[in-house]
Amino acid sequence: MSATPLYEPGDSIYFKDDVLFLLDQTQLPSCEVFLELDTHQQVVDAIKRLAVRGAMAIGVAGAYGVVLGAISAGSGSPEVSRRAARQAIGDIGASRPTARNLFWALERMERSLEQADDAATTELIERLRAEADAVALETIETNRALVEHGQELLGDGVVAVTHCNSGPLAALRYGTAVGVLIEAHRRGKKPRVYVDETRPLLQGSRLTAWELGHAGVSYKLICDGMAADVMRRGEVDLVITGADRIAANGDSANKIGTYGLALAARAHDIPFYIAAPFSTVDLDCQGGDDIAIEERDPDEVRTFAGTPVAPGDAPVFNPAFDVTPAALIAGIVTERGVLRPPYSDSLAAPGK
Amino acid sequence: MSATPLYEPGDSIYFKDDVLFLLDQTQLPSCEVFLELDTHQQVVDAIKRLAVRGAMAIGVAGAYGVVLGAISAGSGSPEVSRRAARQAIGDIGASRPTARNLFWALERMERSLEQADDAATTELIERLRAEADAVALETIETNRALVEHGQELLGDGVVAVTHCNSGPLAALRYGTAVGVLIEAHRRGKKPRVYVDETRPLLQGSRLTAWELGHAGVSYKLICDGMAADVMRRGEVDLVITGADRIAANGDSANKIGTYGLALAARAHDIPFYIAAPFSTVDLDCQGGDDIAIEERDPDEVRTFAGTPVAPGDAPVFNPAFDVTPAALIAGIVTERGVLRPPYSDSLAAPGK
Repeated sequence: MSATPLYEPGDSIYFKDDVLFLLDQTQLPSCEVFLELDTHQQVVDAIKRLAVRGAMAIGVAGAYGVVLGAISAGSGSPEVSRRAARQAIGDIGASRPTARNLFWALERMERSLEQADDAATTELIERLRAEADAVALETIETNRALVEHGQELLGDGVVAVTHCNSGPLAALRYGTAVGVLIEAHRRGKKPRVYVDETRPLLQGSRLTAWELGHAGVSYKLICDGMAADVMRRGEVDLVITGADRIAANGDSANKIGTYGLALAARAHDIPFYIAAPFSTVDLDCQGGDDIAIEERDPDEVRTFAGTPVAPGDAPVFNPAFDVTPAALIAGIVTERGVLRPPYSDSLAAPGK
Repeated sequence: MSATPLYEPGDSIYFKDDVLFLLDQTQLPSCEVFLELDTHQQVVDAIKRLAVRGAMAIGVAGAYGVVLGAISAGSGSPEVSRRAARQAIGDIGASRPTARNLFWALERMERSLEQADDAATTELIERLRAEADAVALETIETNRALVEHGQELLGDGVVAVTHCNSGPLAALRYGTAVGVLIEAHRRGKKPRVYVDETRPLLQGSRLTAWELGHAGVSYKLICDGMAADVMRRGEVDLVITGADRIAANGDSANKIGTYGLALAARAHDIPFYIAAPFSTVDLDCQGGDDIAIEERDPDEVRTFAGTPVAPGDAPVFNPAFDVTPAALIAGIVTERGVLRPPYSDSLAAPGK
């Protein structure tokens, strides 16, 4: 099987000596603090307050949260541990009801629990821990394959624009779109990256800038409205972002601001790529019009890093995502390869 | 001559009983505080710290600053007052060296000073005050004509997107692009406006949202990256912004983010308009490539209101303006009418 190690220095999530270590994303970039969690309720809390965010990272944290639930029930009867694990699955599942990857992870933990029906307490906990490890390893392996496939898009000295955060913090160890750029750096291709700050929640300036700096990748931080100007100056070779959901026809929902970036790229004949694991593809969703877009709290726009910046009663439109139509997407990087248009064919039968 | 009154309730700049009243733009939208200035140094300070901003507003404040310089020299010899006025012209001119409209105003004050060469102190001050009043009235009259001409672009119930601040705060009483929208509201056309917050300095959320709310215009505040999505939803009829400089061929420099907005408008077949006084047109500047774009302090992007939002050493690209090519501009609203392409003809001979 895979020789991927379960832990590597620099990982933002790992499980050791019955403690889940999580790099607290809310304290970045000012402080690099690892939370040390030993109850499932602490995991619920960390997910709710976005100390851990990014669909794949949440899935892994949630799986280990179930292990913590079983462990904290003590070494008594296996039935008590089993009940505690089930309670953990319920509580963690309720923490971010729209995080699809979290449910995939929790369903695996649930199945593992069912299969360990006769196990003694120690064995039950061992099995749950092994399943959480498997969830983590599979996530890491998916991302590793994805960032490798992405290399075919990047030559030496390439200049990219990215939006929001899709690096190792969001998708374990490797990341997706930002992961492709970091992997290019590791391979000596010397990529340079313009990072959109990504209002309103500033995942670009708070997280992606921190990740790229940490990895030693050359980058410049820009406000979202500056990307088109950078392109007009002839400095950009490609745009690459993650995605939250990809419809059967290739239309892709991602953090608000992505669509405008894709339009600017098209106007300058710059290819725009999506990088996302295949679990992001929703074949039941025919196209972008079927993707419901959540509207978020107006205060995210009325305030900036906690400081009021607009009239307190200012009416606000604050969609969390936008949809980039497939026609603007030059390719979709997945763990099964770079998919090309027409996406209704390539997404349905990714081959390999 | 014009029946335009020198003062109307709601004006953000006015001169009364030897005091210059300035609505402090740095305290908006939280507090509506009028500064009461009685020395030219206080005017210099207000311009430097952006308590008054917007080329036309700065010009008017600067003109009255010269009057304050002469007054504060006391009622002694006219030579002392004259020297104080010249000192004020020098100090105020050094406060914002790139504000072209300020120099137009100060040159008028300088000429007035020369023409009053033999005047006694009281008469000298009266002449300077009359000239400052004339600068203010001409500015108001220019803006009034501009927002009237802009009405031909707006039908009933129109939905517009705007960027940065180009309302009454920036351009006395009427404003330019935002002024056109406010005038439409006054005429009962019920326009609705999406306001870009305009990173990094947030003139949209801090100033334009406040102005529109104050005027009773229906608006929604959005982050800059949301405008393209609003257009995709089919909700936008036109985009209108101000301009900082317009080249002879119609290429227009405006606040960073305007170009991306114009590209998004083009992609959705939505007309994009500039509204700016004719003094913004620089016929010596052949095209956008001749317009030098100032880069501003990286900390405007790295922090907000003193709060760090990015790694403290994050490399930043922070251009103050971008250039929208003439080919993307459907019309330029000026006080002499709405100019249409080809701009090399219409700007050179605006007719009327």
